[in-house]
Amino acid sequence: MSDEQYRVLNRESLPAYLYAIPEVAEVLGTEPDPEILEIGDGNLNFVYRVTNPADSSRAVIVKQAVPYLRMVGEEWPLGRDRMTYEIRALQLYNELIPDFVPTIYHADEEMSTLVMAYLDDHIILRLGMIDGVRYPKVAEHLGLFMAETLFGTSAWSMGSEARRQLMDRFTLNAELCKLTEEFIFAFPYMVHDSNYSNPATDQWAIENIHTDSEYKLDMLAMKDLFVTKTDALIHGDLHSGSLMVNQDESFVIDMEFAFFGPFGFDVGKVISNFLLCCTSHFHHSDDASYREWLIEQIEVIWNTFSTRFDELWAEASESTMLTEGLLSTDEFATLRERTMVNLLRESAGFAACSMARRTLGIAGVADVRDIEDLDVRSAIEIANLKMSKRLMAERNSLTTIDDLIALIRDFYTSPIL
Amino acid sequence: MSDEQYRVLNRESLPAYLYAIPEVAEVLGTEPDPEILEIGDGNLNFVYRVTNPADSSRAVIVKQAVPYLRMVGEEWPLGRDRMTYEIRALQLYNELIPDFVPTIYHADEEMSTLVMAYLDDHIILRLGMIDGVRYPKVAEHLGLFMAETLFGTSAWSMGSEARRQLMDRFTLNAELCKLTEEFIFAFPYMVHDSNYSNPATDQWAIENIHTDSEYKLDMLAMKDLFVTKTDALIHGDLHSGSLMVNQDESFVIDMEFAFFGPFGFDVGKVISNFLLCCTSHFHHSDDASYREWLIEQIEVIWNTFSTRFDELWAEASESTMLTEGLLSTDEFATLRERTMVNLLRESAGFAACSMARRTLGIAGVADVRDIEDLDVRSAIEIANLKMSKRLMAERNSLTTIDDLIALIRDFYTSPIL
Repeated sequence: MSDEQYRVLNRESLPAYLYAIPEVAEVLGTEPDPEILEIGDGNLNFVYRVTNPADSSRAVIVKQAVPYLRMVGEEWPLGRDRMTYEIRALQLYNELIPDFVPTIYHADEEMSTLVMAYLDDHIILRLGMIDGVRYPKVAEHLGLFMAETLFGTSAWSMGSEARRQLMDRFTLNAELCKLTEEFIFAFPYMVHDSNYSNPATDQWAIENIHTDSEYKLDMLAMKDLFVTKTDALIHGDLHSGSLMVNQDESFVIDMEFAFFGPFGFDVGKVISNFLLCCTSHFHHSDDASYREWLIEQIEVIWNTFSTRFDELWAEASESTMLTEGLLSTDEFATLRERTMVNLLRESAGFAACSMARRTLGIAGVADVRDIEDLDVRSAIEIANLKMSKRLMAERNSLTTIDDLIALIRDFYTSPIL
Repeated sequence: MSDEQYRVLNRESLPAYLYAIPEVAEVLGTEPDPEILEIGDGNLNFVYRVTNPADSSRAVIVKQAVPYLRMVGEEWPLGRDRMTYEIRALQLYNELIPDFVPTIYHADEEMSTLVMAYLDDHIILRLGMIDGVRYPKVAEHLGLFMAETLFGTSAWSMGSEARRQLMDRFTLNAELCKLTEEFIFAFPYMVHDSNYSNPATDQWAIENIHTDSEYKLDMLAMKDLFVTKTDALIHGDLHSGSLMVNQDESFVIDMEFAFFGPFGFDVGKVISNFLLCCTSHFHHSDDASYREWLIEQIEVIWNTFSTRFDELWAEASESTMLTEGLLSTDEFATLRERTMVNLLRESAGFAACSMARRTLGIAGVADVRDIEDLDVRSAIEIANLKMSKRLMAERNSLTTIDDLIALIRDFYTSPIL
């Protein structure tokens, strides 16, 4: 990535940049004066929607990383190579599972810029779920997405050298890995300036998190996996804000955190985001049936994920980890079964970390942080911390998804508000 | 690594190459016609000793990788970039623990060549141990070497970005990782053309290894750690043939397999090589005291290693894994203690794999394979396989080195020959 060709795009320079790319010009049509809307609500990047004003169906999304934290400004430098990793992950996902990621029209590592399909009738899953909307396909899509991407980039699927070459393309996504290491696996469990604050929640955390030695050591065991276990290319930030959905389709976005990490990280984050939403609905709605829908989705996600993962695995023959003739059919089945139990436990552990950091750390979820009544918000926050502690403490006694769902149902029988 | 500058060195071209390097010319002195002896008994590389004939104390070792398997010839291509990783590892070890690796006079990634100090009064540890020689310092040196190199390149010691940058320098050591994956973690446990054969041993393996499902699944769990766990920069081939020793000094050599792998791999290989030698001494000597010396060395290696590793850790403050203020002193001590128990178990598991592969796989150890009487050899081989099975099956019940030493002593009370 050289700096020579890089320049920050803006409204003035965008049209010329885009029209010079044949694939993009074809989508936008010949209208010389496109409508440009800055739509990025993210903290890191510039995101524009560029539309042909004569035909609003002709539109693209342009995402560019700048060498600083966009929400703060140039005084907070942040390497723009995060876009390099987003590009590489999105390209790979487009090969592995094209139905669940936006079509790429142009990817430019030098310019840290991605031009993608505009998803015109999709909404961020988190916002829909806060509003209590049911998306009948999203759980299945999430399960399939994770199965294909995690299995497909694992040592159970790839040959040894090809896997190391792919891993090499993500090893240096160091700045974003460091963000996760600190903001998910360190600061939320201690007194730290960056943490969120809500007095009653703070007090509960001091008494029940900061001083819970077993919980913190378990959390560090999860961090060790995040830092050192290279099971597969993980999305790295797969929460309900990284999904654009409607009743039929689901698209995974924002994969700048992608790197080779542990199998359970994406799965755990997904589970935790359904749980965070579920707890928040004790406030958002009177209707218990939406909470029940959310819990059911966790079950569907896991069942779809584990079934497809196992199918792909059972079909695989030679790979880094598999040698034809080493295992009998029964041995191979036992291996897959045990790995999946372990993956469930690991996912519960990462879900626990995610629930704590979304509650105590700098980056909350709108599901909870947008609740204006601080007492109500704190009751929900403390419930999420209690759930985090249960998931962490009981994860190694889980054997099937039924065990996890039973734990969740049991948890929500206690009063939240 | 470009191919343009690379050429295979030989007796004719070596002097000019060496005298053009000031550091090497200084060591060799001005004698224009050095004595060149090819001393490589390895399979992969050319190794020369170059000496000033007027002063034999002025000598260097030149090691060059060629783009094929040296022992077979050009028809068996093998990337010479293995030397790149050996150079990088040796340079790093020279920074971390210079007393235990040869001094580098010149390292040339382009030429895949390393010029190092000649160790004139040292012997390969394996050969000395076969002869029953006691080296009073080697166990302590091995323990220190592993503690400094494994801790010093771990996420407990290094910052996140520096660690990823170092890891990036080894990720693509793919060909040699693949060799280990296949020859340590796959072929020895099944019928495979590459395996060694000794009829009675083969028969025992078919009945007791190939069909032992739990053992094979455990072995694959160790393989999974080797393939996916990036705890630290490991030597990757730390056996008693990779050590040059005398009564006072120990030098670790041959680090071309270096990459980021699990903590327990080097430790386990070292342990297994002392055990392989110990079993072989039921044939090599009548004197039980040398076997006892070997067992004691395992204890000293572990105690030195774990004490020094813990010291370095206790002194560390901020790193990828450590955040000042997160853990209390007691919590930190508990964390270190549990990690060390886990590392002992992992080491026992890798020792189990190493013992099996050295017995059944293509690469045996001279301690055993040089025993001419096939029945005696087979008895020793079967004992090593039994030890492998015990280590694997009982590893997770080990808590201290005393447990491991008790297992070993108990094992050797059963008749071997």
